[in-house]
Amino acid sequence: GTAPAIIHAQEVIRWRLASSFPKALDTIYGAAEDFANAINQMSGGKFEVQVFAGGELVPAFGVLDAVQQGTIELAHTAPYYFFGKNEAFAFDCAVPFGLNSRMLTAWMYDGGGNQLMNEFYAKYNIVSLPMGNTGTQMGGWYRKEIKSVDDIKGLKIRISGFAGRVLTKLGGVPQSIPGGEIYQALEKGTIDATEWVGPYDDLKLGFYKVAPHYYYPGWWEGGAQLTLYINKEKFAALPKEYQEMIRAAASHAHVTMQAKYDARNPQALKQLIANGAQVHRFPKDVMDAAFKARNEVYAELNDTNPDWKKIYTEFEKFLRDQYAWFRLADLSFDQYMASVKL
Amino acid sequence: GTAPAIIHAQEVIRWRLASSFPKALDTIYGAAEDFANAINQMSGGKFEVQVFAGGELVPAFGVLDAVQQGTIELAHTAPYYFFGKNEAFAFDCAVPFGLNSRMLTAWMYDGGGNQLMNEFYAKYNIVSLPMGNTGTQMGGWYRKEIKSVDDIKGLKIRISGFAGRVLTKLGGVPQSIPGGEIYQALEKGTIDATEWVGPYDDLKLGFYKVAPHYYYPGWWEGGAQLTLYINKEKFAALPKEYQEMIRAAASHAHVTMQAKYDARNPQALKQLIANGAQVHRFPKDVMDAAFKARNEVYAELNDTNPDWKKIYTEFEKFLRDQYAWFRLADLSFDQYMASVKL
Repeated sequence: GTAPAIIHAQEVIRWRLASSFPKALDTIYGAAEDFANAINQMSGGKFEVQVFAGGELVPAFGVLDAVQQGTIELAHTAPYYFFGKNEAFAFDCAVPFGLNSRMLTAWMYDGGGNQLMNEFYAKYNIVSLPMGNTGTQMGGWYRKEIKSVDDIKGLKIRISGFAGRVLTKLGGVPQSIPGGEIYQALEKGTIDATEWVGPYDDLKLGFYKVAPHYYYPGWWEGGAQLTLYINKEKFAALPKEYQEMIRAAASHAHVTMQAKYDARNPQALKQLIANGAQVHRFPKDVMDAAFKARNEVYAELNDTNPDWKKIYTEFEKFLRDQYAWFRLADLSFDQYMASVKL
Repeated sequence: GTAPAIIHAQEVIRWRLASSFPKALDTIYGAAEDFANAINQMSGGKFEVQVFAGGELVPAFGVLDAVQQGTIELAHTAPYYFFGKNEAFAFDCAVPFGLNSRMLTAWMYDGGGNQLMNEFYAKYNIVSLPMGNTGTQMGGWYRKEIKSVDDIKGLKIRISGFAGRVLTKLGGVPQSIPGGEIYQALEKGTIDATEWVGPYDDLKLGFYKVAPHYYYPGWWEGGAQLTLYINKEKFAALPKEYQEMIRAAASHAHVTMQAKYDARNPQALKQLIANGAQVHRFPKDVMDAAFKARNEVYAELNDTNPDWKKIYTEFEKFLRDQYAWFRLADLSFDQYMASVKL
């Protein structure tokens, strides 16, 4: 007879990955494809991962429940979508005035971050791995210029949950509108502003035509991570070889996604400017007021959410140390390079 | 009889990876170990990669020849070591006032950089993949303060080849000294300064005791990449599954190495300062003189080295676009975070 290990190697394992994103967001959606391709090729087709866009298998925001229940094995999502369930999800994606892309990756891979998140995810029956980052996002599109923090008062801005909670303290009025309806709402003046991602994704949606003032930085997303969710029991039951393929393929997609944004944003920015976008830096009083509000929100969460407090305590210590170091070599190098004629 | 594919899956392939680095540089050397572990685990031990420290199998700087000739299958090195053979190797590692870590990764993975390098490497019978980055390095340890560019004149500094060529234009006197002999040379005053890596590695060598002035940024290494060399014919003969494992495992080690430096540098910096290191930013006139000298050296290389010119032309275009974008969201976010009390 044939040895068991050989029978096993001939079985095909088929897993389904639900992305929270549409195919049109090709860099983010593409990370799930890069992951699946790597797995399929490394296993010679014996471990087959099929990717579905947001809504194809389960609703975009239903992927957490679906992986938790084991309806699907894998999901690729932005964990801050689940901020309403528990604010601590946001540490696995982005928190206002948080870590930048490299720092968040460092925290995840070598600073204890991924371990802390997985302790939290255990109650959702999920194992998580970092899988992509956008880098610092832009602050979005505004119909009128923002000249001081007073211009935030009453401003109706389409923005995600966590940033919205901070912005409310400045008098802003956060709006929740599906991606496909933003343009029309901006055009009609139903909203005054919207945030999206950065030049590469923003160019496609054409916001510059109806809200030409393009602000930076997106202080609520200094480095927004996308995350791979894996059903915990199904992961534990996988052969070790395939578990390790998942880890390596997730790292591979983590690199390729950030690389695509970084390589493609510059051309898109040029195109946006050629199309009439007016690029501005947020006034310092807006940044200062938002940073103060961020600290107030965090203090409130420390009082009300023990999951948040446990992770926050480690996160903020890491953050403090990161900027104390990063400001030297990395920041001074980047500042110099940005200051000279290249 | 047993099917060929099954016989094949039972064969064990054994490859040797020669690192150019000692085990004491645990973050850099560790990238080769992370790579090998991933391959060994993903293949269930059927594709076995064994790692050797610099000098164990071949001399640290002999790894290029060894992979080219097929004496070994794999190497992990800093390609600018081979600057003396051809200056174009440096694009696969670091050039003075070049791309930072994220930008270099973007160029490699999505900007055509890895493809350009592999066209160049074809004549060395090598396939290369990015495998690690240090981030922006520190500018090194100086016995006396550098108050202006005049203090560079006559300064004997232990520094790598490319940076040395730029520094010579400022009147500096580059020295080539093996890692193990630097401390004594600094102590005796045979040299006035040395560059090494950053806080995590520098702490171990104790330079702060004999040359306490610690400068930033290392403008010659804005993001120094380490690279995996693969013998081209042996790579082509591998099963597709194993080729893909090499790609994914290299990406995994690429992420883990940068993450380790980023996560560990802050504590080492604190320790160095507690031990008496005096941290300074290079004066602006030093940066400006070095940047001018960089441009002169590049112009000379464009005239003398067609390999350099071909890659440089693409590299510099990418660099220019990168900083035009990066200065907005990413740089302004980092600057703000470095300016507030966290």
